[in-house]
Order: sequence, then C-alpha cells, then structure tokens
Amino acid sequence: MKIKGVNLGGWLVLEKWMAPQVFRGTQADDEYYLAQDLPNDIYQDRIAGHRLEFISERDFVEIAARGFNMVRIPVPYFIFGDRPPFIGCIDELDRAFTWAEHYDLKILIDLHTVPDSQNGFDNGGISGVCKWAQEPEEIDFALTVLERLSQRYGQRSGLFGIEVLNEPIGKKMWKTMDVPDRYPARDPQKAAGSQPISLSFLSDFYLKAYQRISINLAADKIVVFHDGFELNAWEDFFKQHRFNNVMLDTHQYLMTAEADGITQTVDSYIAYIQKLKSQITEVQKYVPVFVGEWTLFNSYAVGTDTQGGRNALQVDFNHSHKLTASELREVYQTLWQTQTEAWDEGVGYFYWTYKLLIDTVNDSGWYGWDSWDVSRAFNKGWITKNKEI
Amino acid sequence: MKIKGVNLGGWLVLEKWMAPQVFRGTQADDEYYLAQDLPNDIYQDRIAGHRLEFISERDFVEIAARGFNMVRIPVPYFIFGDRPPFIGCIDELDRAFTWAEHYDLKILIDLHTVPDSQNGFDNGGISGVCKWAQEPEEIDFALTVLERLSQRYGQRSGLFGIEVLNEPIGKKMWKTMDVPDRYPARDPQKAAGSQPISLSFLSDFYLKAYQRISINLAADKIVVFHDGFELNAWEDFFKQHRFNNVMLDTHQYLMTAEADGITQTVDSYIAYIQKLKSQITEVQKYVPVFVGEWTLFNSYAVGTDTQGGRNALQVDFNHSHKLTASELREVYQTLWQTQTEAWDEGVGYFYWTYKLLIDTVNDSGWYGWDSWDVSRAFNKGWITKNKEI
Repeated sequence: MKIKGVNLGGWLVLEKWMAPQVFRGTQADDEYYLAQDLPNDIYQDRIAGHRLEFISERDFVEIAARGFNMVRIPVPYFIFGDRPPFIGCIDELDRAFTWAEHYDLKILIDLHTVPDSQNGFDNGGISGVCKWAQEPEEIDFALTVLERLSQRYGQRSGLFGIEVLNEPIGKKMWKTMDVPDRYPARDPQKAAGSQPISLSFLSDFYLKAYQRISINLAADKIVVFHDGFELNAWEDFFKQHRFNNVMLDTHQYLMTAEADGITQTVDSYIAYIQKLKSQITEVQKYVPVFVGEWTLFNSYAVGTDTQGGRNALQVDFNHSHKLTASELREVYQTLWQTQTEAWDEGVGYFYWTYKLLIDTVNDSGWYGWDSWDVSRAFNKGWITKNKEI
Repeated sequence: MKIKGVNLGGWLVLEKWMAPQVFRGTQADDEYYLAQDLPNDIYQDRIAGHRLEFISERDFVEIAARGFNMVRIPVPYFIFGDRPPFIGCIDELDRAFTWAEHYDLKILIDLHTVPDSQNGFDNGGISGVCKWAQEPEEIDFALTVLERLSQRYGQRSGLFGIEVLNEPIGKKMWKTMDVPDRYPARDPQKAAGSQPISLSFLSDFYLKAYQRISINLAADKIVVFHDGFELNAWEDFFKQHRFNNVMLDTHQYLMTAEADGITQTVDSYIAYIQKLKSQITEVQKYVPVFVGEWTLFNSYAVGTDTQGGRNALQVDFNHSHKLTASELREVYQTLWQTQTEAWDEGVGYFYWTYKLLIDTVNDSGWYGWDSWDVSRAFNKGWITKNKEI
C-alpha cells in the first residue's frame, strides 16, 4: 500500500504566507518575532485560537473522504511547552491521534523546527538564522524532544512514524534559495555565523536520533530522514547501517526546479518529473523513499515567474498571462497525474498542504496560490481522483 | 431555479455549541457575556481571529463545489461597530460579497440579533432575555441597521435579499422551547419582563422594515420575513399588502417536532415532513416560502431523546442505541431526500449549518451532532447529491 498523504502545514508550525491573519497587526515574519511583537497574553490567546480553529475533527473527516490514508504533522521544538514564551501543543497532537485513529488515518510526526533553526526559512521558526547545528546543547535538546515524542506515541496505532528533522539545508539548497536574501534576518547579530549544514553532521545526528527513538517504537513504526535536498547523496549511509524500518523523505517542488533554471512550461515540468522518477527508482533500490512535500503550484499556472516561489508578501507580482479556468484545470490535472505516478515509484507522497487561509479574490496578489491548498484543488476540479493503488 | 442554500452559522453571530472554543476560559453562554467576561483586548483579538479563520475564501469554493447556489449569512445588530463593546463586522461581510460574486453564489443577509433580543435564545445574543419588542428606541435602531445594509448592498449582484429579523418568537414557540428554563438568564433583573412577541407587533415591524429598505434595493432583490414559527398565520398579511419581491422564511427542525411530541422514528419523521410539505403547498399560493433553517439532526440518529435538541453543554446524554455506520447513512440519506423534496414545494432551502467545530471523538457527548455540519454530512456520505432542480 502506498502513502497517499497530505501535510497539515500552518497548524502547529506557523507560516505567515499560509495564514497571514495570525500575524495581523505585527511586522513579524515568523513565530519567533510574533511572540516578541505581541503582548504575551494576546500572543497566547491568539495561538490557542488558531490551533483550535485551523484544524479540527471535521478536517480529518474531509481528509479521509478525499482518499488520503495519512497526514504528516509538522510540530515545533517547543511542542512540550518547555521553551517559553512559546506555547506547547502536545494536547493538540493528542487530539489529532484520536481523530486519526477514529477515521483510519496514520500520522507521520515531523519535527519541523529546532532552536536557532536548521535552514533559516520562515518555517524553520526564525527567518535568516541557521545555527542550530553549531550548538551542542540545542542539538541535544532536539534529541530529547524526539525521545519524548517516541515515548508518548511509539505504541499508538495511529502512528506511522517520526521524521527526525524537516529540511536541514545543505550547501546546494542554501545557494539555490539564497537564504540570507530571501529570508532576511531581523537581528543580523543573531544571524551571524549562519551557514548550511554538512551531510556528515546530518548523518551523525540521524544516527543518534535513530538510536534514541527506535527503542520506544513498536515494530511497525518508521523512522524517517529528510535528504537535506540531496536525494542522491545517501546510498552509503543506508548501506553502511543496518536500520530497521527507515525511509528517506525528499521534497520536490517545481518552483525549486524553476529556481535552478528549468523552463516554465508544462512540457518542461513533465520532463523534469520524469527525470526525478528515474532517480526515485534508483534510490528505492537501497531505501524506501517518499515525497514528503510537493504541490501543483508552478509559475506557468500563476502566469508570472515567481522567482522560486517567492510569494505576495515578498514580491508584488504582475500576472502577465492568466489562463482560462479550463486551461488551468488541464495543467493542474496533468501535473497531479504526472507527479503522483512519479512519486509512486517510491512509497508515495504527502501533498503540501491541506489548507491555506489566503484570499485570492480580495487580494489579487495571491492569484494562483490557491493550488497549494489541496481542498481547493479538489473543489475546483483540479484533482478529480486521488489515485487508488 | 430553486434556492439550494446553506447557513454560515456561528461566524458573525456566535453560538457556543457550534464553536465552544471561542468561549474557552469563560462561563459565558452567549456573546453578550463573553464580551463582559474577557478582558477587552483579549475579546477583541479573539473575535477577530475567529472571524478570519472560521470562514474564508476556501469555504466559498467548497460551498459552490457542493452544488449550493446561495448562502444565508446571520449578522448581529452591531455589524456597523456602533454598539461597544461589540465589534463590527461589516468588512467581513464586504469580503463575503466579493467571494460570493466571484464564485457565483448569492447572499441572503439575515439580521440574526437585535438589542435585548427577539427570542431569548443564545443565538439571539443574550440568553433568557426577550425584551427588544418593548423598547421603541431599539426597534428603531434595528431599522437603521437594516437601512444601512440595504444602502450598502442593495445594488450588489451578489445580494439575493435581506431577511429583516431572524426567529422573532411567538407564544407557541416560547412555550415549546420553554425559554426561561432552557436559556436561563444570567441576570434575572435584566430578563424581567421578557415575553414572546405578538404577530401584530411583528406585522407592523415587517411593514416598517419593508418601507425602509425596499427603496434601496435593486428590482430583483428580495425582502424576507420570518414566520415567527407560525407558518400558517400570514395569509391575511400577504394578501392585504401589495409587496414586491417578498418571501416567507420558515424554520423546520425535527427536534422541534420532537419537543411537540412526535414519535422518534424515521417513519414518524417522514410522515411529519409530508404534512409540512402540504402546508408549504398551501402557503406557496399566496407567498413564496423557503425553509431557511433545517438539518438532518434528529434524536433517533443520535440514539437518545435530545429533549428538543438540547446539547452536550446543557445535558449529559446517554447514547442508548448507537446505529451502525450504514444504518446512519441510510437514515440521513432518507431524511435529506425527503426534506429537500418537501422544501422544494416552496422555493427551496438553506441547511443549518455549513460548519461546526465540535469534537465528537474526543468528547463523546457530541456523538450525533456532526449531522448539523453539512460538510461532514457530505464527507461521511450522508448526502450523496445536492439535488439539481
């Protein structure tokens, strides 16, 4: 059975572009500064409200009805509530487990942030900072979070597995994304010394994490490692170590391929996906691999070069060639079909994302960004079928 | 073309049972006391957050995709922000109009509350109080709200019409619902003198409201009058007055019929609906009538006598005979079919409601209450088709 999953992005780990409402009245670009910019009682109440409203039981009903069998849930390092001023969210994850078990979905817990960040993205918790890997105490703290998660959920029938770290950034992606420019640090001093993470550091961390959590996991649970945006770099790692039940997570966005220079046409996207498909087939020979994040979003459908997926908060776009509704449907249907078929050469996928609060009608700068929202994509007829395998 | 609508309940007019999260940390049963019980800055931020998250563009995408052609939007008397400490929500309604017009939906604006309430329900804004009709200044205030709404939206293509007052309560329903017992007043002094509203008062108010707003409405817009829970009482009213484009709204809940004593079986529900259908046929001879609120919810499916729809916040239920998933599906599919066919003897319907945040899995007291949520009803297969007419 293949993974047909969707990410609950923007729920327990905030991303401003996914729910700009949560950042209203502040200049904050990430949760680190949101907590600083709001009075503490307002911050606490606002976060509580967002968590209770953004995802609730009815979303699990919908996800199951859409033919998905799994959700990937990004969680922050402060999930246990021991890193003030940030607010824990273990109760929310507890409730998600009862929903998942009731509606026959599995959960992949994804540690999406660590203190001082593993990538410098806004979704790493603090834009422009990437220093976690240089801080031994924080590396150890991340391990204790993983350990506690494995202790709490390791025997739950709703658990699929634990992904030990989301998108630790390697040199190549650091350059592609141009992190210091795209995610400017609010406090340059805090960002000083930020740099990409080496694969040797990552291998070492992954081994330690595996050791710490696998002893708490029931036999069928999976430990997941993100590829650090280098899908082909892990053959030796998996061949040298005798892991039980591990998988490799690779994130594949067309916008990243665009940033690396591919032509912004449907044919070019398809050719690019076919190449990826071959790579997945190769990797699959030594480790099960899934695409833990991907989307229908692309510059051709948006009608303008999004410069690697920069959004309306960052750039004021001119939509030069809007497609008709039926053209748009055809593009997205084709890309859904092509991508899911490619990802199924591995063990499946998680779409990014389930839900967005952006308003594409009242704020035309968001035109085209609704394709990131899988519910809208179903409701607009861009996905006609969640392929049975 | 028939109205196939859904209510955006719980959005701009709060009801605790629909989104208990909004009332967290307080003893308030309605928005009147929520505003008193929370520090003002928290109240303001919490309401803003709820309004931004509970309904957004993506919900209009879903509603259109489900085959609905209209939404009924309950609005509070303080929509224009001139009744502190309550917070206006005209911007929210403005945004809803752009969404509706973009996704080819029509909006029925429904004035759901007035100061000191027209029914004493929690959804009237203040539980146990029903004194508005005795207060000339507040009667006039309600007319100014209607006038301003008609001025602002009267020419918008997205406007279907304006319902001048939701559920003013007559003597009969006052007794059926046992308002003082079911919605106990927090401040007995404030509730003193509360009583049902006479049909003659209501007729008079409806005439005044019609005169005030119809001059601002484009020719195709509808003025809607609620029947005060007495569907058969309005023949003379409509025959005496030469209205242009008016409709009568009647709310038909199986739980109310249960409170009036009908047997709690599917056959009995069907027989009751057939009788209603005949009544609608009669009324339709002198005024177009729609069912502005109804639901699949019923005590038989819940597995316990809900005592007229009292909920888990009010009663600790023992679910004596849970149905299997397939039995439940059959009951609800039958009731959807029977009811929509009956309502289409008139000019159509608005389901109550689009969305609920209640958690039926982690809080078993809510078992069966998910049928009020039309999205869940679709996703659970309880509605297979939104009938084309």
